[in-house]
Amino acid sequence: MKLSFHPIALHLKHTFRIAREIRDVQNTVIIQLNDEDGICGYGEAAPTTFFGEDSNSVMETFGRAAGLLENADPFQIEDITARLAYTFPQDTAARAAIDMALHDLVARKLKIPLYKLFGLNQHDTRVTSFTIGIDTIEKMCEKVEEAKDFPVLKIKAGTRNDIEILEELRKITKAVFRVDANTGWTVNEAIEKLHIMEELGVELVEQPFPAGDIESLRKIRGQVKIPVFADEDVKISADIPGLLGVVDGINIKLMKCGGIREAVRMIHTARVHGLKIMIGCNIESSLSVTAAAHIMSLVDYVDLDGHLLITNDPYAGVMVNKGRLLLPEGNGLGVFQKTE
Amino acid sequence: MKLSFHPIALHLKHTFRIAREIRDVQNTVIIQLNDEDGICGYGEAAPTTFFGEDSNSVMETFGRAAGLLENADPFQIEDITARLAYTFPQDTAARAAIDMALHDLVARKLKIPLYKLFGLNQHDTRVTSFTIGIDTIEKMCEKVEEAKDFPVLKIKAGTRNDIEILEELRKITKAVFRVDANTGWTVNEAIEKLHIMEELGVELVEQPFPAGDIESLRKIRGQVKIPVFADEDVKISADIPGLLGVVDGINIKLMKCGGIREAVRMIHTARVHGLKIMIGCNIESSLSVTAAAHIMSLVDYVDLDGHLLITNDPYAGVMVNKGRLLLPEGNGLGVFQKTE
Repeated sequence: MKLSFHPIALHLKHTFRIAREIRDVQNTVIIQLNDEDGICGYGEAAPTTFFGEDSNSVMETFGRAAGLLENADPFQIEDITARLAYTFPQDTAARAAIDMALHDLVARKLKIPLYKLFGLNQHDTRVTSFTIGIDTIEKMCEKVEEAKDFPVLKIKAGTRNDIEILEELRKITKAVFRVDANTGWTVNEAIEKLHIMEELGVELVEQPFPAGDIESLRKIRGQVKIPVFADEDVKISADIPGLLGVVDGINIKLMKCGGIREAVRMIHTARVHGLKIMIGCNIESSLSVTAAAHIMSLVDYVDLDGHLLITNDPYAGVMVNKGRLLLPEGNGLGVFQKTE
Repeated sequence: MKLSFHPIALHLKHTFRIAREIRDVQNTVIIQLNDEDGICGYGEAAPTTFFGEDSNSVMETFGRAAGLLENADPFQIEDITARLAYTFPQDTAARAAIDMALHDLVARKLKIPLYKLFGLNQHDTRVTSFTIGIDTIEKMCEKVEEAKDFPVLKIKAGTRNDIEILEELRKITKAVFRVDANTGWTVNEAIEKLHIMEELGVELVEQPFPAGDIESLRKIRGQVKIPVFADEDVKISADIPGLLGVVDGINIKLMKCGGIREAVRMIHTARVHGLKIMIGCNIESSLSVTAAAHIMSLVDYVDLDGHLLITNDPYAGVMVNKGRLLLPEGNGLGVFQKTE
């Protein structure tokens, strides 16, 4: 297989602000894997500096991975992804792009949509949440108005006025709220805020405390009713044992874990332990969001709106109808490049 | 899909004796799933009364499952197997047959060998152990002579003279020994015997205590050096959490867990927790043994010799060369019926 790649800049509709960062652009890198039969698989890496990657590191990894892929059999996804994980342990977004390109390529060779390769039912769909980034209350209310087609909203929190924001938003929408604190809270703050949030229709909260602060998770256990999900705390399947008994669910992202294959391993492990499962994304184009959507029927909650938060999505794939994700029918990922 | 089935009687080369039973015949049931394109998938149920199934219960389950499969899409393996697990929770051998027939059918439709559907490398093979059933020491020595091509032997134990047997067998072979106590020991007996077995080249021991006796497993933890594997204690993935910290590995069998799909879930979960993984079988024909062999590259130890212990295997599939399993190259399971 031949690997080629190029960076793209995704422009955000609204300046993206979460508890720890603020930005207007997400740089991602698109890859193409061509096999000797002239069939091609596509992937996307949407790196985050929080996990130590950026578009430059991703492209460097692709350059180094190209040799490893040159003589590989695309059907041997297990071996290839294991070798990549061994060689590039920290480069999960780069590996996710290769993993999805391999899956795209193989499913295209077999002339089936990717979900069929996994034995899944495309009609078993999920409703995605739509993300409302941190802003002035006025602007957040505007965003909620714009998102009125979405029955589930993910409200970014982790500021002093989280409660005030939620109270104001609740006045203008009946949508289900999921709250993402993005590591922004302390223990007392979490308990206090979550108690109030119980009355505000909050379905779950993500990552209240800094990554690795399992002790704080343990402290609020039994003190709050709203289910607590790990996000920054759980990158790969190996992180799951340390979270047993302290969270109710995990947020899996292809860019954190290194691809669809590891995502499925995480899903299987989490299920055995009775953890609820969310699949999420970064700011990404429709290419990698669609890759994640192909396995949505395996999870409980979906937060796949990265492609809806940008103005210049170069791809079309998964469609959204009142929040419900609909998989494309094409072979492989079923994603195609928009022509304009 | 149309489901049809017929029972077969597999005749054992040697009377099979383990700690709790003795017999000369294994009755299994062969199924055939035909889809509307005229493509066909095969499966086999090799039930054990220990887990509450026999060929009659299996055939009754097939009769009831036929309606459920009639209008199902074979590609939706996840949904179909989940529905079967819900409807027939205890009928794991029956479900294993349907699960493997679905995988066979789908891979045949895609014109690929099954291992490719799982992204696996057929060249990453394993050496199977060969089972030496309980008998007089003289007869066991004869069986070991017959098995001289196999570098790994699984010695059935659970009798008074386990040590005497192993000492005699060790005199005539340099093969690696794995010991299967099949629930036959007490705590003191296990500690005493395993200490002696350390010097006799025993690689691992399976299921020393009665199924469900986790307390005894806990008691020998740290007291013995030979790795302890659960077999009767672990049917499905949900059994794994209860074994964490008390065993070193698990023995997965399609007939216990309900099929390839659940086996993969168990493998993923066990890996995350650092458990070693064996894939084993009952007395079975080459049909279902080959199904298990397709995922051998995902596990550490293989005990797939069920088809080698019978005189009238109606099928040919996985081949064995000095213990090493070689997958067939045909589509689906790659198994064909022998003509004589």
